[in-house]
Amino acid sequence: MMLTYPIFADWIGCIQCGDTKMPDYLSLLSTGARKVRPSELRELMKIIERPDMVSFAGGIPDPGLFPRAAYDECYRDALSVLNAPRSLQYAATEGYLPLREWIAEQMRSKGLTCTPDNILLTSGSQQGLELIGKLLINKGDRVCTSRPTYLGALQAFTAYEPAFDEVTGGSRDSSAKLLYVVPDFANPSGETMSAPERDALVSRAHRENSIIVEDAAYSSLRFEGADLPPIAALDVSLSGSIDTCRTLYCGTFSKTLSPGVRVGWVCGPRDLIGRLTLLKQGADLHSSTINQIATLGVAKACFEEHVTMLRGVYRARRDAMLIALSRYAPEGTAWTRPEGGLFIWLRLPQKVDASALFEEAVKRGLAFVPGAAFFPDEAERNTMRLSYSLNPEPVIDDGIRRICELISAAGDNGYARAS
Amino acid sequence: MMLTYPIFADWIGCIQCGDTKMPDYLSLLSTGARKVRPSELRELMKIIERPDMVSFAGGIPDPGLFPRAAYDECYRDALSVLNAPRSLQYAATEGYLPLREWIAEQMRSKGLTCTPDNILLTSGSQQGLELIGKLLINKGDRVCTSRPTYLGALQAFTAYEPAFDEVTGGSRDSSAKLLYVVPDFANPSGETMSAPERDALVSRAHRENSIIVEDAAYSSLRFEGADLPPIAALDVSLSGSIDTCRTLYCGTFSKTLSPGVRVGWVCGPRDLIGRLTLLKQGADLHSSTINQIATLGVAKACFEEHVTMLRGVYRARRDAMLIALSRYAPEGTAWTRPEGGLFIWLRLPQKVDASALFEEAVKRGLAFVPGAAFFPDEAERNTMRLSYSLNPEPVIDDGIRRICELISAAGDNGYARAS
Repeated sequence: MMLTYPIFADWIGCIQCGDTKMPDYLSLLSTGARKVRPSELRELMKIIERPDMVSFAGGIPDPGLFPRAAYDECYRDALSVLNAPRSLQYAATEGYLPLREWIAEQMRSKGLTCTPDNILLTSGSQQGLELIGKLLINKGDRVCTSRPTYLGALQAFTAYEPAFDEVTGGSRDSSAKLLYVVPDFANPSGETMSAPERDALVSRAHRENSIIVEDAAYSSLRFEGADLPPIAALDVSLSGSIDTCRTLYCGTFSKTLSPGVRVGWVCGPRDLIGRLTLLKQGADLHSSTINQIATLGVAKACFEEHVTMLRGVYRARRDAMLIALSRYAPEGTAWTRPEGGLFIWLRLPQKVDASALFEEAVKRGLAFVPGAAFFPDEAERNTMRLSYSLNPEPVIDDGIRRICELISAAGDNGYARAS
Repeated sequence: MMLTYPIFADWIGCIQCGDTKMPDYLSLLSTGARKVRPSELRELMKIIERPDMVSFAGGIPDPGLFPRAAYDECYRDALSVLNAPRSLQYAATEGYLPLREWIAEQMRSKGLTCTPDNILLTSGSQQGLELIGKLLINKGDRVCTSRPTYLGALQAFTAYEPAFDEVTGGSRDSSAKLLYVVPDFANPSGETMSAPERDALVSRAHRENSIIVEDAAYSSLRFEGADLPPIAALDVSLSGSIDTCRTLYCGTFSKTLSPGVRVGWVCGPRDLIGRLTLLKQGADLHSSTINQIATLGVAKACFEEHVTMLRGVYRARRDAMLIALSRYAPEGTAWTRPEGGLFIWLRLPQKVDASALFEEAVKRGLAFVPGAAFFPDEAERNTMRLSYSLNPEPVIDDGIRRICELISAAGDNGYARAS
């Protein structure tokens, strides 16, 4: 899983090598790097990975659903005698042109008028967030996010030392440099921004001279209801052209085809895309050539039908989780009803600390993500994220029943909220 | 090629959309991003890519030599029904453990005592440089490099706004935060640091409380002479342990197996590796899972024999270029004699501007890289980088002959140095 790494704190000060003093590494770090800290999720993920665990924690696709055969065929083709010299070689920083053309066509089908020059290929949409942070954030700049928000966005931006604020409500006295949103079936809340909310965000960006970062990681996974226009499309309408707009749209194949190939993109004004391309050149030269070529092959072969299949499977699992929650959740519990994506956000009775509850749950072979990790500031500890993507319906029903039993018992069993 | 991107300057100010004003994007950029500028190489690379060109420009492996069959087999294996669920899924930020074990064994065989916990997998060694810049550089920190030096290192570090200085000579009054070197067959100079120079660098890092960045991109491509110990190994000896040393070793499979898979690594003290892992998590979550798995397969299948083959081929091409230079180069020209790697560095008579010479050369279907791009500060414009990696010996002989004719004529033909 993505959230493990060597433990820094455990190690400091435990090694003494004869007369040699250990360097004071901490004193050498940049001020930005010092602010990047391990998240609470780290230790959790080690537990969650245990094979005996029924986990609603990982926000990851069901690996049994990957379009394996299509990838197999496309990698073989990319590695043919004819194609291998290109697939295994260095490539252009901006990305493989035929893939950017395919993505631009996708973007246009969502109402976002653009050309391949508006597309930068990235190593997952996570790299898009990182490059945008590097492009725009000076120390102290205001970056507005929802509460809760995607942990990875906080990680990407934190090293550039912004001041985080809430995108809705909160102080509007000073303008924000960046407005970061996951408008469709957000991680972790599962919520979708309404059309008026999207319009208002675009207006605000124009008024405050801000850049909107539209994280569209889950947008293709709508189960029901009508698609809403991407914020970028609304901005293009208001601005007259994508090349004069204020939105950077971050897309990815991670939730539709495969996260393991690390292929995502940023779509935006050519001016900013050109600058991001320069930064990407310094960051990793370019994303994997062979993965871009194979991804285009898979996308051309089966994108629509594959995503249609995914929507059906995930919808059934969402339904199973919603039904289980309505059946078993105790009074004082509330949850979101996502129209797509992978997540349901659960608010527990005020007195319950989801991190304490988590410790009880893992003893019983159950996992979820305590909500505290998703807050840029003071955490709401009586929250949790549940993902329905990995388990079949009967397992979801049984797991939610058992988690709800724990919630019901929480007040009596000592894992109540400390404060 | 890696050095192309949309042209920023050409576009600014050319779009007017009715009444809508274009945002002043420049005013929104971070101070670091403003400092990252297109290099001179950009336009050159477009020309160099023309198929009719005899190019000594690209510092890239011969694509005809990639271990295609081994990759084909390893991707098939990674995409088997059994393995695909893992290969296409998210993975740990620090990298695929069996690959880190293989790399740690490689490192130990070079005298660098380490374990997989000392290894972070990166998307090429370029990402290693970027993450190290982010980890350590505060605005104004002194970063010392050779002159000339690897352009990509300058690009990676520049966004963090250091003050660049020369690693040898120059002022030693204040200590350096980072000492960046390519000790073996450097890009672009082809030169190799001697054992005493390596020892002196380690002593200096200890004295000045600096971190050494050892860019070992070409180290496996030695054609002759004995391997010198990695700087990291010397540092480990002095420090008593890798976990108390001051060197971050950046390795890559780009020059040995394939650059298109983007698999490199950083090897260093666990403390710093842990911090770099956190930064990488924010930067792109992890490097491509399938590429790490396939790369391990190829490395296990044929690393040593493949690299032995490469050494033989590149050695013969180096020899052809050295012979051609000694045969055709006019008086006042000097060049390095690399013991490995891909590059020869040519110093022209003082009055010749290699950029002007380049324009004449491309008219005749010949390309090289004018040396100016490789200087962090005032450029020595009478220099060029020649790569012998891409052409067979007869083409090298003929191309060098024609370039030397141009050099000989330079003084008489108006493309002399302007100043």
